Amino acid sequence: VKRRTGSAERIRRVELVVVGTEMLALGARDTNSDFLKPDLLELGYEPGLISIVPDEQERIVEVVRAALRRASLVVVGGGLGPTGDDRTRQALARVFGAGLRRDPRAWERVARWYRARGRFPGSGARLQALVPIGAESLDNPIGSASGIWWARGDRRVVALPGVPSELKAMWKEAVRPRLEAGGGSVPVASFSLGGLPEADVDARLAELYRRPDVEMTILAKTEHIEVHLRGKRASPAARRAVDRAAALVRRRLGRRIFAEGERTLEQAIGERLRERGETLAVAESCTGGLVGARITTVPGSSDYFVGGVTAYSNAVKRKVLGVPETILRRQGAVSAPCARALANEVCRRLGSDWGLSVTGVAGPGGGAPGKPVGTVFIGLARRGRRVSARALRLVGDRDSVRRRAAAAALLWLHRALGAGPGARRRK
Amino acid sequence: VKRRTGSAERIRRVELVVVGTEMLALGARDTNSDFLKPDLLELGYEPGLISIVPDEQERIVEVVRAALRRASLVVVGGGLGPTGDDRTRQALARVFGAGLRRDPRAWERVARWYRARGRFPGSGARLQALVPIGAESLDNPIGSASGIWWARGDRRVVALPGVPSELKAMWKEAVRPRLEAGGGSVPVASFSLGGLPEADVDARLAELYRRPDVEMTILAKTEHIEVHLRGKRASPAARRAVDRAAALVRRRLGRRIFAEGERTLEQAIGERLRERGETLAVAESCTGGLVGARITTVPGSSDYFVGGVTAYSNAVKRKVLGVPETILRRQGAVSAPCARALANEVCRRLGSDWGLSVTGVAGPGGGAPGKPVGTVFIGLARRGRRVSARALRLVGDRDSVRRRAAAAALLWLHRALGAGPGARRRK
Repeated sequence: VKRRTGSAERIRRVELVVVGTEMLALGARDTNSDFLKPDLLELGYEPGLISIVPDEQERIVEVVRAALRRASLVVVGGGLGPTGDDRTRQALARVFGAGLRRDPRAWERVARWYRARGRFPGSGARLQALVPIGAESLDNPIGSASGIWWARGDRRVVALPGVPSELKAMWKEAVRPRLEAGGGSVPVASFSLGGLPEADVDARLAELYRRPDVEMTILAKTEHIEVHLRGKRASPAARRAVDRAAALVRRRLGRRIFAEGERTLEQAIGERLRERGETLAVAESCTGGLVGARITTVPGSSDYFVGGVTAYSNAVKRKVLGVPETILRRQGAVSAPCARALANEVCRRLGSDWGLSVTGVAGPGGGAPGKPVGTVFIGLARRGRRVSARALRLVGDRDSVRRRAAAAALLWLHRALGAGPGARRRK
Repeated sequence: VKRRTGSAERIRRVELVVVGTEMLALGARDTNSDFLKPDLLELGYEPGLISIVPDEQERIVEVVRAALRRASLVVVGGGLGPTGDDRTRQALARVFGAGLRRDPRAWERVARWYRARGRFPGSGARLQALVPIGAESLDNPIGSASGIWWARGDRRVVALPGVPSELKAMWKEAVRPRLEAGGGSVPVASFSLGGLPEADVDARLAELYRRPDVEMTILAKTEHIEVHLRGKRASPAARRAVDRAAALVRRRLGRRIFAEGERTLEQAIGERLRERGETLAVAESCTGGLVGARITTVPGSSDYFVGGVTAYSNAVKRKVLGVPETILRRQGAVSAPCARALANEVCRRLGSDWGLSVTGVAGPGGGAPGKPVGTVFIGLARRGRRVSARALRLVGDRDSVRRRAAAAALLWLHRALGAGPGARRRK
């Protein structure tokens, strides 16, 4: 992932402290930060440091203390559970120079939670109702562990359980509203697009780097490119500045943009198919099912996705989809005629309005003269109308080639479906 | 991800410092730590803290200084490139209390790298050949930025470029050998398994928590469970202790284990199919292509995977796979008879030895009385022999239900393929 950012005025800093030995000693990953980052940015906080620390009181104390010296907000995730491994409450009490008290309302809720599950609220339950003196307890609508909110002058510390569903629920219900009350959101806008090299996107939008009131970042992901705009303060003027910049992005990138805000390409495709009352079938070779898997991540996709055929072997291409033997022999399975036949036949045989196909060499083996690894053909058929194919040369390892091939096919379908009434408006 | 770990003796600590504003301000993720962690553990270093810091000299200095107070090894990734944003060299020089010098060998290599690309080695190139006085330069076999190696007493600092391919190559060629020379690897063993609740795995292996010379961690992932064993020093006695513990894991978990070491379930299935000279086809409904996508992540999977049908709509189940109308009407698409018909027909029509099917309600909508969200049937057919189905009740959101359904189907296939000569030995 590459990145370029226009020079930023300093805004409020937040630091994240992620507690859990499993994210250090073993394969567990910190996903809570990925959830928190965009929300914090929107609230006008810039993440200045993320620390992943073990379940050790000494280390938590040291890292939170250092964070509080630098940042106006410190978000701690994890270490609030019922066992001896959970040390965040004690650590924060030490950072605040205070003892721990049992919060009556938290205790009532935790005890009720245990009893509702037929369990006696013992020492583990009591632990989860403790908060440092001078801090507030935050309700947990899903689990047992209560959270912690602490404010002193312009400094805030919030601690939430590490279980992602609990952290998310408590963030949305209890923390975000408090932070909003204390500041107001910074205006943002974002765009996802494909089919242009990153350097071209960069060149087309270069003037936005020089706008004093908007920060732009361009992110190149494996499958697509994202453009993020952010105002530098929470004001109507900043909102207008971001709106002007967003209008320029739309003018310069036009139909390359497949979604605004947090929508995915498969969501955008689903909306267009639904609006048009049409259906889709896919025929995949080198992607092995990835295109169908992406389409069906969207709840309710059965309204427009009828299914697909993964024709990995030539025998299946021939037998199940009726790709002519002559194509497979002369042009080969990785060819424009084969991509057209796959798209056309899957559309016809599965009875859909659209047929989308992918066939290629994902590697690392299987390359041939004139068809090196990364050679991919995608096909698109509209029933009873036309069928066409495109050649791609993709770079990267097997996984990247497969993901990029699936993304290219979906992008093509999206453009063929046209920009409809819902394609631009929604955020 | 949950986790339990036996009490550990203190071993050498390492801290990771990941440099890059893009991982704080936007969606970029730190993948270098995921690569480094297992290798560091094997070398006997326990990650004690991971810090993700912005491209700011002051912050890098502060975080590396704090890390050096606590850890015997500090690995810095990123901030070594040719632009003004890259501040790691200057920051480390400040930490070491030294100036920067141009390393002649590094300069020669960087200049050659630029000239080979038809570019003049200017100020950016010169920057990439700088090392703090008292430190060594590390060659970059792929890119231009050279790395940094610094040792003082029992403390080591290594800095590598943040580009994952460069970091990996330099780690393997230059850093790992140096660290091995200074210590030797700690023995490890790991196992992946499915089909048992985490609590049962925990109970069956509980005595390993009490072994003084082995550390065990059990990790529950969305799709499977992992058991990791690690010795506490680099010695033949520790190797024997880990081997004894591994033997106990194999005895207690038996055929639930689908792979040892870093092998995946789809690799294990591929090896068994290859050994047996047999082929596979899949019929998917709610997983939409996920099972095929997983199978085909393995290079060369076309040797044993012929393809599949994603029968998302009932019309496709009927037309393409010939599922009898009566089954769809009476028992429904989410039923054992339908799963059996899907597996049997995909196997017959695509001409494979095995047929594997998944049909279920992934949610959030689509649940019905007696068939709530999470109800999934998997079917397995062996051509000309038998066909059977199993019912599952899976928990989680749409994404988790789909992933768990795909994993359950693959696990069943793996067990049906039997433990062969290659199933246990390989690491």
